[in-house]
Amino acid sequence: MAHHEHRASREELYLASAQAHRPHASTDEILEWLAERHRVNDYQVSTMPLADLRGWTVEPETGNLRHESGRFFSVEGVDVATDFGPRSAWKQPIINQPEIGIVGFVTQEIDGVLHFLVQAKMEPGNVNYVQLSPTVQATHSNYTGVHGGTRTPYVEYFLDSNRARVLVNQLQSEQGTRFFRKRNRNMIVRVPSDDRLELRDNYHWVTLHQLGQLSDIDNVVNMDSRSVLSAIRFVSFGEPGWVPEAQGTTFSTAVFESSIAPDSAANHEFESVVAWFADMRARYRLSASLVPLKYVQDWHYDGVSISHRDGRDFSVVGVDVVAAGREVGSWQQPLIDSAEGGVVAFVCQRQSGVLHLLVQALVEPGTLDIVELAPTVQCLSGGRQGPQEGLRPVFYDLVCEAGPQQIRYDRLQSEEGGRFYHDQNRYLVVEVDERDALEIPENYCWVTIRQLKEFVRFNNCVNIEARSLIACVGTSAGVAW
Amino acid sequence: MAHHEHRASREELYLASAQAHRPHASTDEILEWLAERHRVNDYQVSTMPLADLRGWTVEPETGNLRHESGRFFSVEGVDVATDFGPRSAWKQPIINQPEIGIVGFVTQEIDGVLHFLVQAKMEPGNVNYVQLSPTVQATHSNYTGVHGGTRTPYVEYFLDSNRARVLVNQLQSEQGTRFFRKRNRNMIVRVPSDDRLELRDNYHWVTLHQLGQLSDIDNVVNMDSRSVLSAIRFVSFGEPGWVPEAQGTTFSTAVFESSIAPDSAANHEFESVVAWFADMRARYRLSASLVPLKYVQDWHYDGVSISHRDGRDFSVVGVDVVAAGREVGSWQQPLIDSAEGGVVAFVCQRQSGVLHLLVQALVEPGTLDIVELAPTVQCLSGGRQGPQEGLRPVFYDLVCEAGPQQIRYDRLQSEEGGRFYHDQNRYLVVEVDERDALEIPENYCWVTIRQLKEFVRFNNCVNIEARSLIACVGTSAGVAW
Repeated sequence: MAHHEHRASREELYLASAQAHRPHASTDEILEWLAERHRVNDYQVSTMPLADLRGWTVEPETGNLRHESGRFFSVEGVDVATDFGPRSAWKQPIINQPEIGIVGFVTQEIDGVLHFLVQAKMEPGNVNYVQLSPTVQATHSNYTGVHGGTRTPYVEYFLDSNRARVLVNQLQSEQGTRFFRKRNRNMIVRVPSDDRLELRDNYHWVTLHQLGQLSDIDNVVNMDSRSVLSAIRFVSFGEPGWVPEAQGTTFSTAVFESSIAPDSAANHEFESVVAWFADMRARYRLSASLVPLKYVQDWHYDGVSISHRDGRDFSVVGVDVVAAGREVGSWQQPLIDSAEGGVVAFVCQRQSGVLHLLVQALVEPGTLDIVELAPTVQCLSGGRQGPQEGLRPVFYDLVCEAGPQQIRYDRLQSEEGGRFYHDQNRYLVVEVDERDALEIPENYCWVTIRQLKEFVRFNNCVNIEARSLIACVGTSAGVAW
Repeated sequence: MAHHEHRASREELYLASAQAHRPHASTDEILEWLAERHRVNDYQVSTMPLADLRGWTVEPETGNLRHESGRFFSVEGVDVATDFGPRSAWKQPIINQPEIGIVGFVTQEIDGVLHFLVQAKMEPGNVNYVQLSPTVQATHSNYTGVHGGTRTPYVEYFLDSNRARVLVNQLQSEQGTRFFRKRNRNMIVRVPSDDRLELRDNYHWVTLHQLGQLSDIDNVVNMDSRSVLSAIRFVSFGEPGWVPEAQGTTFSTAVFESSIAPDSAANHEFESVVAWFADMRARYRLSASLVPLKYVQDWHYDGVSISHRDGRDFSVVGVDVVAAGREVGSWQQPLIDSAEGGVVAFVCQRQSGVLHLLVQALVEPGTLDIVELAPTVQCLSGGRQGPQEGLRPVFYDLVCEAGPQQIRYDRLQSEEGGRFYHDQNRYLVVEVDERDALEIPENYCWVTIRQLKEFVRFNNCVNIEARSLIACVGTSAGVAW
């Protein structure tokens, strides 16, 4: 690593990019370009029986679904026991993908403003085929070239420290209800201004300001992008932060202020939040181990799909993909088809003038270390009607019955289209009045966004749903400030 | 959790306690008291065959050594595969103790100075029987009273948030070479000054200043104490820190300054250290799973002990214990008897005037998440002569051949006497000249003590040996300042 020099800090670069009112291209242009990339590449995705998937097989001995090469991922069973939540023990299918991939943005200063290189990426599970992904979204086999196949464009900037400076490199978890301890490296690298980086088809430069605007539209900024963007911080380690003189009247300034708030302005000192989190990991038990899928009761494989006998939660289906713009022109693969109606929401409240989020310590089957910090409400398997009364999570009703004057964010966002079929969840932020004293269960805690981002930095502390949602509302923070 | 009030911060309390030149009782008095506790309680520990241990059994089906009640811990096998270090795959015995216990200090302001309540605790494996432990050192069964038995004194202050304020509560790992993913909660609680806490036999109040002095003596401050003390910070979250005007001429002021150094004074920005650490967890592989001990090749049980056929690394032995001052008056148990000659050392260097430690990302069989940050040298199984040439770890020679003018700390400290038999390691800090440019392998990184303590806060980032050593040199930091 190079010795520290005096230079514009990464926080200053991010802030300027978030406030860039004269971006390289307008946001409408980005949307038009995205639509055009969709038109140009003739994408076709159709569902098909698992038994007919080329290259994939359900192993007779185990019932596991895997690729004949042993690559990509497999669908296996997981045997879960926990004292968290209403169910104490169950088995379910889960995706096993032990390799650590890279999801990362190449950035570069253009006309003095940091721009992010986004990709118009088709993923077979996306409802709208093409969304904005990070510059690179590559499995370990992808970027080490084990597959043969085309080398992932721009990946050299992430692998060769002479080509770019690393701004962010964090190990982050993915959906703990669907993946068994899956993680990716979330990266942002900065390429020197004089590097004449070739702009390929399907790639475009955008500012953080634009990414913020695009996050405010349904299903444009994909899950991996949101995950990486959650690492953006506007105040550096060991900086006291500040509360701007004119306290935020708009929600976006309140978000920004919560992102830079000094610890003294927080409801709980950071050390107390750390203590609460340690308590949660000591308080709950989680035992989870992979088992052959054929031993998972109530789930069956009928040649077409793997599904629960009550049609519950999700099923595993096959898709046939034809696409011009990808490394491989056409392929077939399994995807997870989840029940509709998922709700992911943060309840927030201004406390002594500073916006706080109510985080939940949540146990999920695929969590590496017992609990991670999750949104206030994370309800992914309720079905279109939502969960039955009596089975609704705490704060579910509060969130779903919130009036328009309380709703600060409400968009459909997609989970990763490379693994999930038409999986959109409703992402919400609901603000409760400063005078409302909510009753807080032991596994919930009020934190500032700055405090939450401190946890993001350390792997397996903040789950993908929480990171995704803070990216949605936080990326353009400071825009209006 | 109570709402944040304006009050003396915990950092101010710690600093005042570390600088307390008029402690409640002098350090010589503490040592005299410790010797007296040793005399008063008539401790006797003798080794005995495992086969004769009351209550313990080697299961015929598995070869595992466990207590008949299923409590305490068991010795099982672990099957390890990794691409870190010279050995790619092996099996070895390992302690399995999945319960999360509490090790914690009760503190109270006495005459305006924060004092720590230490216990003169006999542990059967200690070379000198009695060392200073935290106020409470209790397994989960201990403090929930599952055993029947006497309730652990003072444990109520850790369990009832109305009795004391939590200053520290962190989940921390223990020896990854000996334990399979063992963790304890490391706690410091502060009891209100008006609480008339009963001072029992075997307990004494000491300041941080005294704990610093006592850490500078062989085998007085026990491992659990050192582990908890490593959480002490002299600068809080989001405080910029400062470099005092007169830069440290003594080592202890240099340690103090490194503990409070602003990030701009560090060789690597904190974000870069986080990135390096994520790289290390993505770079290396570790697969470790428990297996029946009888399937561990090259190790055998002969009724007396469990040992390697070459006498390597360690063996499992039995001890018979008679003690007046413990919850249970006499008992028998297994202990791990390690090879002598262990060396645990930090290499440090002043860089641009600020002291940096060279940390290592180390894979150990019992590590929960692939790597943890470890001292520059951690060589626990070398035997009395040290490891053979060619098998010596990087920097081993540098550390062991350091001249007296380079050695800043050099003491024998014991590993936990409740699990380890006469297990003393040589804990060293060696300073290299500012002009020496060391060649740094990819799994090493220079950090300030403040940066390292930021990692300590988050569980399973810094291993017990590193925490122990920074507690030894760091507790009295500021004494001379």
